[in-house]
Amino acid sequence: MPDERPELTIRLMDATDLDRGFLEAIGALRPAELTRDQAISIYRHRLRSRVRTYVAIIDNRIAGTAAVFIEPKFIHSGGIVGHIEDVAVHPAFQKHGVGRALVVHLLNECRNFHCYKVILDCAEGVIPFYEKLGFHRWERAMRIDL
Amino acid sequence: MPDERPELTIRLMDATDLDRGFLEAIGALRPAELTRDQAISIYRHRLRSRVRTYVAIIDNRIAGTAAVFIEPKFIHSGGIVGHIEDVAVHPAFQKHGVGRALVVHLLNECRNFHCYKVILDCAEGVIPFYEKLGFHRWERAMRIDL
Repeated sequence: MPDERPELTIRLMDATDLDRGFLEAIGALRPAELTRDQAISIYRHRLRSRVRTYVAIIDNRIAGTAAVFIEPKFIHSGGIVGHIEDVAVHPAFQKHGVGRALVVHLLNECRNFHCYKVILDCAEGVIPFYEKLGFHRWERAMRIDL
Repeated sequence: MPDERPELTIRLMDATDLDRGFLEAIGALRPAELTRDQAISIYRHRLRSRVRTYVAIIDNRIAGTAAVFIEPKFIHSGGIVGHIEDVAVHPAFQKHGVGRALVVHLLNECRNFHCYKVILDCAEGVIPFYEKLGFHRWERAMRIDL
């Protein structure tokens, strides 16, 4: 029943979210393997690097996270691009629309930043998830390991 | 003959590069359609956003440009990722290895930033160019227009 659905809040991450299960949530993507001090150091590094990390909160626990980087370009008459990174949902909260809610929230944030497009790279298996949200297949992502 | 090859310098962009043909160079990718004042405003916005823009210079002219964004991640034990954007070579300097030199320079910068990988999105036709530089096909880039 709809009124039994737990309330979901999405907001920018702050350091206290490390005590609400943030690392367990992002660990759904790939184990973070960080101490709390290391995580705080990275959190601050990301703030300085202008990476915006968002959290989805249910019952004061981190149900999921996603990040976006806002890139002002010279081309497209100074158009602004949003880059979505690291969408992850805590195993205990999967299949409840948390990932969808996070991406929709980020798209609205990107609209507020006047982005003309938002891009992301994903594995083949996740393409239908993003297509349902209005994304279409775009270029080829290339990678080099250093 | 090798000794006739003009000297190529690559460095971080500064605002004076707008007087050396920077917009014409990046215009090879897509017309920038900016006044000088607009371009300076975007240049400053990119500095604040931590987008690092590089220029390749031949005979005091901008032969090409490329940018990189350095993203510290929570996953991969706080690993750092380099994102390459907007590699462009001025039409008058194409087929002289300028694009290759720019990407090689950016990869070295990413090594200095201790990146464990560098990624970029490109059109199908440019894949061989990046494969020759050591990149391999990775995920699917997805896009949504706002």
